Amino acid sequence: MSLLSSKLVTNLSTKLRRLFPPSDWARGYGAREWRQDLLAGVVVVFITVPQVIAYALLAGMPAEAGLYAALMALGCYALLGSSPSLAVGPTALIAMMTFEAALSHATPGSEDFRLVAMQLALITGAVLVLLRLVNFGAVVSFLSHAVVTGFIAAAAILIIVNQVPSLLGLPASPDTSLGGALGHVAASLGALNEAALLISVGALLLLVFCTFWLAGLLAGAGLGASAINSLVKSGPMYVVLLGALLVWALGLEARVAVVGSLPGGLPSLQAALPDLARLQQLLPSALLIALVVFMESTAIGTALAGKSRRKVDANQELLGLGAANVGASLVGGFPVAGSFARSVVNFSAGAVTPVASLVTAAGVLVTLLFADAFHYLPKAALSAIIVMSAWQLVDFAAIGKIFRFNWVDSVTFGITFLAVLTLGVEPGVLLGIAVSFVLLIRESSRPHIAVVGRLGDTEHFRNVERYPLAKASPQVLAVRVDESLYFVNTRYIEAFVLNRVAESQCIKHLLLICNSTNFIDTSGLELLEELSDNLHEAGVTLHLAEVKGPVMDKLKQTDFYRNMRGKVYLSTDIAMKDLA
Amino acid sequence: MSLLSSKLVTNLSTKLRRLFPPSDWARGYGAREWRQDLLAGVVVVFITVPQVIAYALLAGMPAEAGLYAALMALGCYALLGSSPSLAVGPTALIAMMTFEAALSHATPGSEDFRLVAMQLALITGAVLVLLRLVNFGAVVSFLSHAVVTGFIAAAAILIIVNQVPSLLGLPASPDTSLGGALGHVAASLGALNEAALLISVGALLLLVFCTFWLAGLLAGAGLGASAINSLVKSGPMYVVLLGALLVWALGLEARVAVVGSLPGGLPSLQAALPDLARLQQLLPSALLIALVVFMESTAIGTALAGKSRRKVDANQELLGLGAANVGASLVGGFPVAGSFARSVVNFSAGAVTPVASLVTAAGVLVTLLFADAFHYLPKAALSAIIVMSAWQLVDFAAIGKIFRFNWVDSVTFGITFLAVLTLGVEPGVLLGIAVSFVLLIRESSRPHIAVVGRLGDTEHFRNVERYPLAKASPQVLAVRVDESLYFVNTRYIEAFVLNRVAESQCIKHLLLICNSTNFIDTSGLELLEELSDNLHEAGVTLHLAEVKGPVMDKLKQTDFYRNMRGKVYLSTDIAMKDLA
Repeated sequence: MSLLSSKLVTNLSTKLRRLFPPSDWARGYGAREWRQDLLAGVVVVFITVPQVIAYALLAGMPAEAGLYAALMALGCYALLGSSPSLAVGPTALIAMMTFEAALSHATPGSEDFRLVAMQLALITGAVLVLLRLVNFGAVVSFLSHAVVTGFIAAAAILIIVNQVPSLLGLPASPDTSLGGALGHVAASLGALNEAALLISVGALLLLVFCTFWLAGLLAGAGLGASAINSLVKSGPMYVVLLGALLVWALGLEARVAVVGSLPGGLPSLQAALPDLARLQQLLPSALLIALVVFMESTAIGTALAGKSRRKVDANQELLGLGAANVGASLVGGFPVAGSFARSVVNFSAGAVTPVASLVTAAGVLVTLLFADAFHYLPKAALSAIIVMSAWQLVDFAAIGKIFRFNWVDSVTFGITFLAVLTLGVEPGVLLGIAVSFVLLIRESSRPHIAVVGRLGDTEHFRNVERYPLAKASPQVLAVRVDESLYFVNTRYIEAFVLNRVAESQCIKHLLLICNSTNFIDTSGLELLEELSDNLHEAGVTLHLAEVKGPVMDKLKQTDFYRNMRGKVYLSTDIAMKDLA
Repeated sequence: MSLLSSKLVTNLSTKLRRLFPPSDWARGYGAREWRQDLLAGVVVVFITVPQVIAYALLAGMPAEAGLYAALMALGCYALLGSSPSLAVGPTALIAMMTFEAALSHATPGSEDFRLVAMQLALITGAVLVLLRLVNFGAVVSFLSHAVVTGFIAAAAILIIVNQVPSLLGLPASPDTSLGGALGHVAASLGALNEAALLISVGALLLLVFCTFWLAGLLAGAGLGASAINSLVKSGPMYVVLLGALLVWALGLEARVAVVGSLPGGLPSLQAALPDLARLQQLLPSALLIALVVFMESTAIGTALAGKSRRKVDANQELLGLGAANVGASLVGGFPVAGSFARSVVNFSAGAVTPVASLVTAAGVLVTLLFADAFHYLPKAALSAIIVMSAWQLVDFAAIGKIFRFNWVDSVTFGITFLAVLTLGVEPGVLLGIAVSFVLLIRESSRPHIAVVGRLGDTEHFRNVERYPLAKASPQVLAVRVDESLYFVNTRYIEAFVLNRVAESQCIKHLLLICNSTNFIDTSGLELLEELSDNLHEAGVTLHLAEVKGPVMDKLKQTDFYRNMRGKVYLSTDIAMKDLA
């Protein structure tokens, strides 16, 4: 009894520890780890603050919502997430998706819009936690590289085009579609604000300088790689500081749009529970946002974990990201994800545990106490930060690779890109996913099949079309299917085999070599049964060879196996010696 | 010049011959073939006539439309189809789909309803020809065995339930949904027609007798298998003859619903061209009907071809079935497909070329000249024929197999079955296809991966978890991925590899064994690049082994290959000797 209960306790504590990663890394946490995490956390603050304020504006939210969302996201993820260096909070892509999703339900700037964004974060978080509970993190596999690359490239263009009014000091475009935004700029170009334009151009030049030239200069000055990385990535902070200073010093407050007064201090907790009708409306958008949040974050987390030989736990990530989104919602924030730029800085600055994220959260909190400092921050400078981030999202090398490497992916990329650009993010991405599935199944429906023959006197069998020395037996048709047998390819395989049998009347045996067959579904079982029956009437016996263990276990339970006329051979060699 | 032009002529004639199969089989056609085809064709007439009249009623069309559709379908398919024994014409499944699709656009019995059915046949035919032109017969792979089995089982129940009013002599139900039809029967049970009920019960008993007991009796009497098959399958003809005789002899014409006068003689040609709005409305239904027509017909054709060692040509089938549907439309018919029952009789009665189908067409034509004979045919008897056909559509053995063999297919079957039953054929089948895709990708996202080790002192490497004798090297992690590397599984593979590397700090090399990798998409290429870079920072070098020829050809064009730090080995054995 006590043994049982002590076992239960151990079991429970293991499970709890799994659910709550700090119980794992807190042991053995010492002064050395603290120094590393402290440094990394502080460095990340300087990149986080200007970015999240800018992304709040991108999401159509008040500036402080970005800081609130970052604060809670960092805290919640630190307690439940599995990656030590992932920096969670508002990101450009997710902010843009949030804006587009909320736009169909409320007017930007209204209290209802803020509420919809909070509800989106809450539902997104719930979806992520739900995916953990049903153990379906694999859903992220639905997004192919080509779909994601096309989506991001088009989203970046949409983001940049929609920042142009702010860069030029024009009023925001009421229509955020590509054509609408461009038309708005053209129509209102007369109201160009020179002061805003000067700030934008200056900010963009400064950001370009930081991104492309600063690293070289600093390296020449003998700085270390980690310090260089932090200084280079702090470009947005220089822009924010210089921009605010300029507006204050030159008294431009009346001439350019500024962030204005932020409510200082801590955010208040508020539950933005949607009613059932709203839930139904927002669920499709939240599903897609959750998918992108999870995909982007685990991609970053996995890459960073690999660099430091750490484990990644996709299930734990679902929990951590889910909690971060629910947390962001509770303080008036909007959906959050792992940020690529901030995570890389966190990693290279030496973060070893999520304590670094807690330090960053504390830094954001301090910022909130001095919120007045952002009063003079010009919106044009924030738009410049957004434009630079969006530009850096586009992976031109990856796009080139897609077009050089794979025509199927090129088609998927092209359709996703154009659809997101013209139809919007949600229909565009869904169309891209559908296209990638259809093309995948089209490819899968024609598996590689080879008629194999013995290579000289060896035990090796090779494709007779590739190896002139491989000799097929006249009586035995040995066919190697380099695929599992399942509904997508069974018709092709059946036609291939029957046509080959039809071509040569002296064939007496068909040997199906299954060394690449990892599973057989009922369509595949049906194929085997029909082949066996139909070939039998044509005087040909079906045999199998090299069936894998798990597949054989399944087959042994079937009537097909029990009534099989032919044999199952361990190797092609044994089969051919027996049959030929 | 003359050499060139003679080459051109030869080329052209080969192409024409491929498009027009009769030019192939007409050579060498002699008296023996004619006798076989004549016998088979005549036998099939006796099954075709009652079935197609019954299915015309099932489709909500006048009785003669079934005969017209069969006539043209048989003729057109004989000229362009590739299977010598496929008997094309109205079938229960397609008739039911036609009825349901046309019901949303017109009232059964109206002239417009007839027109919609004709337009459906025309668009279905055009879709099939179009699929041939874009060479996308693989679209049929979208329908998994589980989806088809679930769809047919539910459709059979819907067909049977909707025949109950006719069996009982009640008016037809205005609502054809499961609940609606059952409610209608319950509500109008007071109007039960005893004469109709007697005819139905008698007809059903006769059909059950023919299906289950007649074969045994005839075998006892010493008849051959082919004759038995023809006599057994002619059950519908006995029902039709006895039913009409009974109504005529007992003067029941006023008491039960009869087919009534058919317009005698040849059908007139009429083009039922839909306008653009109608085309848009009907296209989704026509696409699904075309998919089912193609799938059912090629399944039958392939099975019969296999039995007689003949080739099947899916592309030619698209042309033949497309022409059959266009032809059926031109004479006032509705969509047609290969009939399982009639094709099997055709085959077992000895049909060797499509001439048998032409003979059957001639038989149907003769029937049309004596159309008066059907005047007294009671509709209750036709409903009995429909019920028996629908019952035989359900493959109980296949359903049992699905549930025993594969849980993924069981879920797909269950959802398709329930969705077709409650939501209708089109949404049900589409939902089933979606579910089968999602589950397939869920499965594919977790490919089989094994860490392999050397088996004793041999050159063989096996999964260390399955073979206790297989020893993994401490410094080299050798991982065999039993799958292609593509977007669905790259995240799982990356996590697997990184977690294994994280577990053992002494690993210096990662060897990826690719002998089951048939293709790599850009997601897969990205995986290799990221693994290589991230592992490099962790002090591990990535190598490849056993890369297949076509995959290697693609890889050689990439920057990944050009900048690769590790090597590509021909075999695992060579790699391990070099690295360990």
